[in-house]
Amino acid sequence: MAERLRTSRRGLLTLGTAAVAGTAAGTLTGCGSDADQPAAAPAMVAFGGDRQAGIATAQQDRLAFAAYDLTIDGTPAQNREALRELLKTWTAAARAMCAGKPVPGENKLGTAPPADTGEAFGSKPANLTVTIGFGPSLFDKRFGLADRRPAALADLPKFAGENLDAQNSNGDLAIQACSDDPMVAFHAVRNLARLGRGTVVMRWSQLGFGRAASTSTKQETPRNLFGFKDGTRNIHDAKTMDRWVFVGSDTDQKWMRDGSYLVARKIRMRIEAWDRDFLTDQQNVFGRHKYTGAPLTGGSEFDKPNFAAKNPDGSPTIPVGAHMRLAARENNGGVQILRRAYNYTDGMIAASGELDAGLFFLCYQRDPRSQFVALQRKLSAHDALNEYITHVGSGLYACPPGVADHEYWGQALLAD
Amino acid sequence: MAERLRTSRRGLLTLGTAAVAGTAAGTLTGCGSDADQPAAAPAMVAFGGDRQAGIATAQQDRLAFAAYDLTIDGTPAQNREALRELLKTWTAAARAMCAGKPVPGENKLGTAPPADTGEAFGSKPANLTVTIGFGPSLFDKRFGLADRRPAALADLPKFAGENLDAQNSNGDLAIQACSDDPMVAFHAVRNLARLGRGTVVMRWSQLGFGRAASTSTKQETPRNLFGFKDGTRNIHDAKTMDRWVFVGSDTDQKWMRDGSYLVARKIRMRIEAWDRDFLTDQQNVFGRHKYTGAPLTGGSEFDKPNFAAKNPDGSPTIPVGAHMRLAARENNGGVQILRRAYNYTDGMIAASGELDAGLFFLCYQRDPRSQFVALQRKLSAHDALNEYITHVGSGLYACPPGVADHEYWGQALLAD
Ligand code: HEM
Ligand code: HEM
Repeated sequence: MAERLRTSRRGLLTLGTAAVAGTAAGTLTGCGSDADQPAAAPAMVAFGGDRQAGIATAQQDRLAFAAYDLTIDGTPAQNREALRELLKTWTAAARAMCAGKPVPGENKLGTAPPADTGEAFGSKPANLTVTIGFGPSLFDKRFGLADRRPAALADLPKFAGENLDAQNSNGDLAIQACSDDPMVAFHAVRNLARLGRGTVVMRWSQLGFGRAASTSTKQETPRNLFGFKDGTRNIHDAKTMDRWVFVGSDTDQKWMRDGSYLVARKIRMRIEAWDRDFLTDQQNVFGRHKYTGAPLTGGSEFDKPNFAAKNPDGSPTIPVGAHMRLAARENNGGVQILRRAYNYTDGMIAASGELDAGLFFLCYQRDPRSQFVALQRKLSAHDALNEYITHVGSGLYACPPGVADHEYWGQALLAD
Repeated sequence: MAERLRTSRRGLLTLGTAAVAGTAAGTLTGCGSDADQPAAAPAMVAFGGDRQAGIATAQQDRLAFAAYDLTIDGTPAQNREALRELLKTWTAAARAMCAGKPVPGENKLGTAPPADTGEAFGSKPANLTVTIGFGPSLFDKRFGLADRRPAALADLPKFAGENLDAQNSNGDLAIQACSDDPMVAFHAVRNLARLGRGTVVMRWSQLGFGRAASTSTKQETPRNLFGFKDGTRNIHDAKTMDRWVFVGSDTDQKWMRDGSYLVARKIRMRIEAWDRDFLTDQQNVFGRHKYTGAPLTGGSEFDKPNFAAKNPDGSPTIPVGAHMRLAARENNGGVQILRRAYNYTDGMIAASGELDAGLFFLCYQRDPRSQFVALQRKLSAHDALNEYITHVGSGLYACPPGVADHEYWGQALLAD
């Protein structure tokens, strides 16, 4: 992986060779005032590389996530062969779509359905990334892969307060498609489902939206549905990415080297209750100022929080139960995760007339046991935010490394 | 209404004074190459005017639609007063949001919740329009408005094949919020719900996405989820808009002069079945070429279809059941409607594992009885598309005219 780094206008990172295809890195709505970013070049993220795109590459505005279950029912050798065929087809399709091309195959008049469903024809790739992950269930008896299951892919424990819906959790395979164009992200997930017909069925899916694809040339940290800036103290440099996000040479499963582990949590947010809360309370929940994003201990958004600071009455300025205090690396032995979350709205909850909305929390890391699980154990027990949120869906996936030009996703995992 | 017209880059119309605020009319992702459109100006659509914005103004990329029911339970005079207060508050809030400002009120620390929920702080208005409509139920006994119900607001008849869900239909009030930024559209609908607490509850809602907010400077006609260009023969000029979309002086209810009638239909599309169909069949269903959008009788996208043309075997080139043949003005006594539809996806249908997706069809017109209803009677009986679609939700709303600076929505309707 190249060492060269560019900070994109979204404030997230774009990592050298892996992500920079052509010219504009991680930029979409770039207009005249960004002198270094030619606005006319179609925004593309390279599909191939040592590491999968869609993890450390700049976060796009829209998400289409889907989890799939395999439906094949043969001997482990037959099943593994079918899985291999599926992953070859999917890799080729994802590679084409990320380059702005239709799904490979016939798209002409004739006696077969078109290979590509067509709704994204004429659209630019808009920084499409398609990232795959393998769920723990893939390592059961069906494919003879039990001895290739990484120790870090240990089932998540049950957390306090969660209310998980099995129909919105887990899955043998997961696809995270991100793009600045929702149609392009949706098209990717839909076409993979279609190409896999007979081999996989979609188990659950989620659309998400992130920040504004607006005309602004000065992008700010995006806000979540509670109105707070989200992502301020996310991982922002390559060295931290290497240390906390990507699997190193110390892995028990070599096929995961340069891969990463994805934890997905669908977190419902009680918007109506939140909106009735006073600003002071809201700020105490996060430990930050709502409008500026600065820590309650002052300064501006990116200034370091002072966890030791006290109010005149002796109470801590950043309260004991503040989300930020509980989650910060300073208070967790240095642990960090890469957050890549999106807002979602699924309409309304008929019974209560409330909005069914929240955060589709995606995070990447080197080992969920010591990262997401450790943080979430603490948050689920003490976070002031818990009054307003409930975890309702969950998934854990081992995301293999990236692919070279003639490789396919999971090739090393599926080798005989 | 000014006569000056500008064709926006989206191919839809922007009508002079009503829509052009400042500089850029209906443009969002405008970059250097559009010489006449300064890219740096925040994209805004004027809220005030003779006619409501969001009808004839250029269509934005995202939709947040919500229908609300009033919950007040007093005498007609009390109820009407409460409705008036609500509409005053809503108008002021919509006016502010469309100008890129927070909901009026206190947003400071203090002993009350902030007036604005905050998730769109820092976002540009991104061409936000907020358009209101009144459902037939508003004219029942509760408000003493029965004698002000326009004849054109006649309940829709039952159509062949529809399967309407009462929980996704109707409502006393409807809000169509459109913007090029989904957060901004969502923020509008959510904040109106919040401001109306105690007076209204949200009945149903729908998010939609339209075309790509991509880097492209040459925008094409957007595609729907069946992969076809949608909007080719929509209304594209002001004279036709006057004739078919806006209520004229011949109305039975003066308060509707310069208003329009909105019909909303949530139409589920059976994507998986469609994707198994051959290209020839797909093209015969619409009567158009999939990739170019041209009519089957040849030429390019915007060329006139030749409904008389025959194949060598004597059959019509544009088949008898083709959606386009059935809906075209040439075959409906000149009748036209203004379509302003969005794609939607609501996740998955758990029972079948199919995508729950389709078209949120919105259309505006002067009189639904002779326009939407006449067309849909024919389509519901004969359209080849019916094999792949089902209407699952429905709403009909009288959208009052626009407001001057100190007016509020529906002021003439609610006058004593
Ligand atoms: C709906 C649920 C959640 C919301 C609304 C939320 C929101 C926020 C906000 C506003 C911040 C402060 C700004 C920033 O640094 O990004 C933050 C920080 C953070 N959150 Fe969350 N979060 C949620 C769930 C989670 C979960 C489930 C985890 C992990 C288990 C997590 C981990 C973190 C971390 C590590 C930080 C950075 C703390 C620091 O170093 O200052 N969050 N979150
Ligand atoms: C899921 C449902 C629908 C889909 C996918 C669909 C799609 C299309 C497409 C692809 C076209 C051709 C391109 C164009 O001129 O825009 C078209 C035209 C049209 N559609 Fe639909 N449509 C749907 C429902 C309806 C409904 C419910 C109505 C009205 C009752 C309607 C009225 C029209 C009209 C008036 C035209 C223009 C015909 C012409 O003048 O050539 N459509 N539609």
